[in-house]
Amino acid sequence: METDLSGRGSLLIRDVRLNGERVDIFADEQGMIAAVGSDVGRTEGRGADRVIEGNGATALPGLVNTHTHAAMTLFRGYAEDMPLQEWLSGKIWPIEAHLTGEDVYWGTKLACLEMIRSGTVAFSDMYFFMQDAARAVAEAGLCAVLSYGFIDLFSGEKREAECRNTEEFVRFVRGLKNPRIKAAVGPHAVYTVSKEGLSWCAEYSESEGIGIHIHLSETEKEVTDAVAQWGKRPPAILDECGILTPRTIAAHCCWLDRDECTLLARRGVHVSHNPVSNMKLATGRAMPYHWLKEAGASVTLGTDGCASNNSLDLLTDLKFAALLQKFAWNSPTLLPAEEALAMATSAGARALGFGNGRIAPGEPADIILLDPRAVCNTPAHSVISNVVYSCPGSAVMTTICHGSVLMHDRTVPGGEEILREAARAARALVERVRES
Amino acid sequence: METDLSGRGSLLIRDVRLNGERVDIFADEQGMIAAVGSDVGRTEGRGADRVIEGNGATALPGLVNTHTHAAMTLFRGYAEDMPLQEWLSGKIWPIEAHLTGEDVYWGTKLACLEMIRSGTVAFSDMYFFMQDAARAVAEAGLCAVLSYGFIDLFSGEKREAECRNTEEFVRFVRGLKNPRIKAAVGPHAVYTVSKEGLSWCAEYSESEGIGIHIHLSETEKEVTDAVAQWGKRPPAILDECGILTPRTIAAHCCWLDRDECTLLARRGVHVSHNPVSNMKLATGRAMPYHWLKEAGASVTLGTDGCASNNSLDLLTDLKFAALLQKFAWNSPTLLPAEEALAMATSAGARALGFGNGRIAPGEPADIILLDPRAVCNTPAHSVISNVVYSCPGSAVMTTICHGSVLMHDRTVPGGEEILREAARAARALVERVRES
Repeated sequence: METDLSGRGSLLIRDVRLNGERVDIFADEQGMIAAVGSDVGRTEGRGADRVIEGNGATALPGLVNTHTHAAMTLFRGYAEDMPLQEWLSGKIWPIEAHLTGEDVYWGTKLACLEMIRSGTVAFSDMYFFMQDAARAVAEAGLCAVLSYGFIDLFSGEKREAECRNTEEFVRFVRGLKNPRIKAAVGPHAVYTVSKEGLSWCAEYSESEGIGIHIHLSETEKEVTDAVAQWGKRPPAILDECGILTPRTIAAHCCWLDRDECTLLARRGVHVSHNPVSNMKLATGRAMPYHWLKEAGASVTLGTDGCASNNSLDLLTDLKFAALLQKFAWNSPTLLPAEEALAMATSAGARALGFGNGRIAPGEPADIILLDPRAVCNTPAHSVISNVVYSCPGSAVMTTICHGSVLMHDRTVPGGEEILREAARAARALVERVRES
Repeated sequence: METDLSGRGSLLIRDVRLNGERVDIFADEQGMIAAVGSDVGRTEGRGADRVIEGNGATALPGLVNTHTHAAMTLFRGYAEDMPLQEWLSGKIWPIEAHLTGEDVYWGTKLACLEMIRSGTVAFSDMYFFMQDAARAVAEAGLCAVLSYGFIDLFSGEKREAECRNTEEFVRFVRGLKNPRIKAAVGPHAVYTVSKEGLSWCAEYSESEGIGIHIHLSETEKEVTDAVAQWGKRPPAILDECGILTPRTIAAHCCWLDRDECTLLARRGVHVSHNPVSNMKLATGRAMPYHWLKEAGASVTLGTDGCASNNSLDLLTDLKFAALLQKFAWNSPTLLPAEEALAMATSAGARALGFGNGRIAPGEPADIILLDPRAVCNTPAHSVISNVVYSCPGSAVMTTICHGSVLMHDRTVPGGEEILREAARAARALVERVRES
């Protein structure tokens, strides 16, 4: 029988399908998986504080979204189908100018709710008012690597301010002592951050032992502008400044050439593929997965912010990823379902340093349960194929992060209030833009 | 208060959002919309046999899927990520060789369930054992144009058999006297049907006053082979045979040139865009929407079968359509949300001859209600943008076709049995393939 699932304590998940077998999963009080097996409910898991009856649900590692601007959920549907510059300068920047910390808090709450409801357990975020974002993530119970978006626009004065902002945020996160929340540095991109700024970010992140989150070679213009201005392509600039490390997440990477794929692989950089955003903004080229794979690079999956995706449902984006690669590189065999799923689970978890994205003893209990009786899972010729090509996030019934049950039977405690307050914050924000 | 929604009789839908206003919708005993307005619940709609409380739900015209092979739901996830020829000859054709009418019945039942659950009210289908498909559609309560897939492989003998099969099916559908089910002729494509076969289909469809459903210029190979063999590109061949008419649905159309877009527009052909299938099979080119739009052609939306899409969720495919056009033709402003939604509603309904895909008096009551409190609809800056870019089919709460309530509060009567029986049929089918 199921028990009260809120709170802490050990957790037994009974009778789930995992890699074709029916097993029980037992997680200890620390939220780590202690045992997986057909007999665990009668052995290690007996007397668990909390029990979930899986009833044959499909168990998968929780999904990991490696590139978000979470609070931009407040802009969902605000501006669409416009040329990039007009969209940025006419709509996005003006509304961002009116953002408050409270807006970022509610926008991030809404993002966390959406991620929980679609099976994401960890994400890598870059934005402003990140203390407020951290507060929202802590309340949601998700894992996240949070970075303050460092933009100096090649001004020494701005750079100093951004360095202090970054240090302040990193100290703030340290002070939280929350094992689910880590800080990273967030130099925005080569076209918004000076080489001095990039070098400072690289050195600071190394001295603090924290990650780096950056946009890389998203558009052709970014590449040609860099060559025109500095005589180098963006990856070479980043490498010169020490930004390319095994702690680095580089988002987009649409316009990498083959040698750059090799460079990123050699440096251990984690690439974040953002298929929906790239299609919506018409970047003109898809991330060259075949070259990255050939080079042995770590490739992960991201949604980007809601202004250029409109959704944080990573299961839908898995389908976009697998299909965009096939279409853009003219190969129906490129990025098969299993590799796509690994991008969104094991590769993502390793990139963010939250375990290895596997359901096995010693790993954090980051687990999602899918409804095996959903239409998208019928028939059951291939669980993985159904997950990647057929199921949207709404097929996720239960989301567990580090042993905490964040959603069960599609119910997220407090979800109604978040929807109401985020909608109110978005309306008030647009009102302020109108009145300005 | 809500009433028993099963059965017939007039229907009042109270308090829904339609084009930014709060209205009631009243449909008469024949399933036609009789009145729409803020006061309808107290006037025309008073005393309706059935009442749905919309509680501010978003009302949209039901979605129309103009290209399916519905029974292929049984193959969902059966064969993936393979080169086209290997996939067809190694997996799809062998399993199709074992299909029975009972399989097609359950596969189509599963397809109808999936369509109802994601807001589709009408579809255009081409497959085999179509009597069994018709039985499934009739039970589901959906609207459909059904065609027997006519394939003569350039053999006179086969052609004669296909003509008789087509005539027999058309007579069968006539005999059903079901206003929701129409027959069409289904010449498969220029590479599987002789010119004599195509001409017979054109003449027969004209004499019977029924539609034509065909694949057109899906792959580059189809075009180059046609030129090599007959010295003409596929649209010219079809035009020569009389296939291009205002009663015709041409699926895919990836490799049309500009003149062919003009030809199709001039002939009044309805093009069915199939973005997911085209991406998955790596057709190498997206339907040229910009040329078709310029020419004034009717462009609609289709999923294709579940073997090359894995899903019949048209709301998800709306996002694929809008994004693929932007990406493939390198324009972030191409196929904006409003035009995409029109493809899947008004254009589709007109293509199939089931009204005009609008919620207005005199139209069939083909209506879906979306949950305004779903995450994908929060915030509510733009209802249409949320529908196209953010919501999956699971945001649809209620599906109404010609006044029949096929789903309400996400419950489809009999859904459990369909899932069970379709899964059983799929397992048995694979078993027969293995044993052969």
